[in-house]
Amino acid sequence: MKKLFFALLLLFAFETSFSQQEDSLMVNKIANEILANGECYERLQFLTKKIGGRLAGSPQMVLAEQWGEKVMKENGADKVWLQECLVPHWVRGGEDKCVETISGKKLDVVALGNSIGTGVNGIEGEVLLINSFDELEKRKIEINNKIVFYNYKFNPTLVQTFRSYGDASPYRGNGPSRAAKYGAKAVIVRSMSHSTDNNPHTGSTRYADSLPKIPAIAIGLKDADWLAKEIVSRTVNVNMNTMGHYLPDTIGHNVIGELIGSEFPDEIITIGGHLDSWDNCEGAHDDGAGCVQTMEILRAFKAIGYQPKRTIRFVLFANEENGLRGGTKYAEEAKAKNEKHVFALESDAGGFTPRAFGFTMSEEKFEKVLKWKNLIAPYGCSEFNRGGGGADIGPLNRIFNTPLAGLSPDSQRYFDLHHARNDVFENVNKRELELGAVNMAALIYLIDKYGL
Amino acid sequence: MKKLFFALLLLFAFETSFSQQEDSLMVNKIANEILANGECYERLQFLTKKIGGRLAGSPQMVLAEQWGEKVMKENGADKVWLQECLVPHWVRGGEDKCVETISGKKLDVVALGNSIGTGVNGIEGEVLLINSFDELEKRKIEINNKIVFYNYKFNPTLVQTFRSYGDASPYRGNGPSRAAKYGAKAVIVRSMSHSTDNNPHTGSTRYADSLPKIPAIAIGLKDADWLAKEIVSRTVNVNMNTMGHYLPDTIGHNVIGELIGSEFPDEIITIGGHLDSWDNCEGAHDDGAGCVQTMEILRAFKAIGYQPKRTIRFVLFANEENGLRGGTKYAEEAKAKNEKHVFALESDAGGFTPRAFGFTMSEEKFEKVLKWKNLIAPYGCSEFNRGGGGADIGPLNRIFNTPLAGLSPDSQRYFDLHHARNDVFENVNKRELELGAVNMAALIYLIDKYGL
Repeated sequence: MKKLFFALLLLFAFETSFSQQEDSLMVNKIANEILANGECYERLQFLTKKIGGRLAGSPQMVLAEQWGEKVMKENGADKVWLQECLVPHWVRGGEDKCVETISGKKLDVVALGNSIGTGVNGIEGEVLLINSFDELEKRKIEINNKIVFYNYKFNPTLVQTFRSYGDASPYRGNGPSRAAKYGAKAVIVRSMSHSTDNNPHTGSTRYADSLPKIPAIAIGLKDADWLAKEIVSRTVNVNMNTMGHYLPDTIGHNVIGELIGSEFPDEIITIGGHLDSWDNCEGAHDDGAGCVQTMEILRAFKAIGYQPKRTIRFVLFANEENGLRGGTKYAEEAKAKNEKHVFALESDAGGFTPRAFGFTMSEEKFEKVLKWKNLIAPYGCSEFNRGGGGADIGPLNRIFNTPLAGLSPDSQRYFDLHHARNDVFENVNKRELELGAVNMAALIYLIDKYGL
Repeated sequence: MKKLFFALLLLFAFETSFSQQEDSLMVNKIANEILANGECYERLQFLTKKIGGRLAGSPQMVLAEQWGEKVMKENGADKVWLQECLVPHWVRGGEDKCVETISGKKLDVVALGNSIGTGVNGIEGEVLLINSFDELEKRKIEINNKIVFYNYKFNPTLVQTFRSYGDASPYRGNGPSRAAKYGAKAVIVRSMSHSTDNNPHTGSTRYADSLPKIPAIAIGLKDADWLAKEIVSRTVNVNMNTMGHYLPDTIGHNVIGELIGSEFPDEIITIGGHLDSWDNCEGAHDDGAGCVQTMEILRAFKAIGYQPKRTIRFVLFANEENGLRGGTKYAEEAKAKNEKHVFALESDAGGFTPRAFGFTMSEEKFEKVLKWKNLIAPYGCSEFNRGGGGADIGPLNRIFNTPLAGLSPDSQRYFDLHHARNDVFENVNKRELELGAVNMAALIYLIDKYGL
């Protein structure tokens, strides 16, 4: 039986590899272009160091859009345009502070995105240590007028760190409202990370409309551990000062570059990342990386003279972090124009060594894609998984049922710096960034050539 | 045919996975222990920050051996001993310098390991740019009395960076003697790296006995590019000062901890890394990582109460970098004692996210090992390749034909810091380091349980 199995395996492998030599050469040509002549690292340096953090509505958002438009043109797009959308305009309003009142210890904190402020006089109150939502419910009568400190740990035993993030992130997203329901006056959330440093990690919180909105801050892991330890032995009060607030919605843009298809110009393939980032960092991995990879693929296709059959759109999406207005607008306009979106690919999981693609598409289409795995695996993505895509391309799938894919780089370092001040250019490795672009470009080339 | 194939595939998968549930649970238990309670990161911090670089013969070598012995005991070895071997004792002797004489520009250089010195007055001479050994041969009549500058580039298009290293490293190993053959008086070698910084990378050079020994230094990539550019337009002279020399051989040790097998105590499994490092760095990735991973596996086995059937030796090898005396001694003593070495595993490719194991063993044994891949893949090593091991365990294979494996972590960052001053603790990620130990421990557990 085993011999038969291996004989069939060989035959099957032969069948599927028969037509792939030409593709293998083309993928290698793309890879060599990006690895030897890549410009995405220098582009990222400019975006992070000359423009910096670029939250929706900020002056840096405008600069980043202008930069994106310029790079799309320089990289050879047939057509470049800015697609307008209204974006929310949350501002931090000043330095976030949290001081333990007896020791005077300054805790390393950052207000959660979308959080309301404490007012100039701050909020002082007793801190109630809550380790989980279960504990919150059990102790709900103790919560009134307290500052709830969610100290839920980022699970170190999950190898895929995005699973730990999915597990912990409800404390950031829903924690403030769940605590407000029982009368809490503010919330401190343990940062969603297993880093060894003390940098606090921000990210969106979402207030329930029906409940009071209370200020919410994230705290670095070392200070979280300190705080938790102190609370065990004594009553701990802190004084919090945050100044977050919303300004009126303002105008932002998706930056779009296009290569027009030679055979099927009406069939649109989208590649993208999001141009906005949190304001407390350079947004190098999140998601400067996805933006410069996207534009690098455009550059590489032009450099090697690749003329796509289908129309390829290179998109830098607006406002992923706290509104998703860019991704939503892109899909809505596509619907209004009755466009045909055949595939979309996003890179928004950091500029680390690529390891996998995740696919959201029919079983039939996934089987087709699987046949290309051996062409891409030598460059990093040796796993093709079911499920995946990205926040910005999600609306395309919901409206058109567009097949999606998301790049899954190595995830071990991502939550060391995600939404934290150390998400800076220096923490991006040139080759890892480039290899992400290589793998994405290879997939796009195959989908463009063969359709889905 | 496709349906039949998939039916057989399912049947085959079922067959091989049938007995694996217990193993899967055990591997998960090991992983959880290391990821939740791991101590290897803190151990590495001590080794790198309190002891530092530890070239064979240095005072730090002695401290590192004492530290290793202590940790082996603390981590619960049944037996710990130091295995004596004579090691070479090369010393740098001072700061390596190279100045371009007209501009006065100080080039960032480091003498190659084992290099002779220039003498206190240094060597001054014209630099001859040589891009490859082919060019060296073609221009051999120009070489006499010159300083040869090998500017051979680290190939960026090879995805596996160890292939680029294999391609470039002969310029470091043989370059000095090949230039000396034609009368060169010194050599400058472009660092074996594709980093974006200017740190020079050392490493062993090997003089041919029959040729004059000439001083050899490595130069950082930015300065290499500068130098190459200058030479195109003018005559460039440099003044080199290096003070490398050998002291008499001295006594070093392999540090060995042992868990004695309960069923087959005479069958020995070896896991190891090398304790020595170059002197110009902390040797955090090379190979502090392999050492602390090795001892972490010991700690984890004891912590979860795993009693091996076979004897497991945890070995910190002496003098890998410039002599391999530790690995050689270990195998020679094993031969003298007629020990039975059934398997050896080495981690000496950095403490990055594990991606693969490379195996040097018979086809039959490899097929057996391949069946365990699905147990280990979820933790990182999703590729099991033919070929691999490590320098220190190589002699075991040559003497006993012992099956070998080497851990292959993600290689993209390794040559950014290999043998350079930035191979420091800060560039090691806790989880990546721990995951390496997890994958190694899983493989060792399976080999211990089932034999090979």
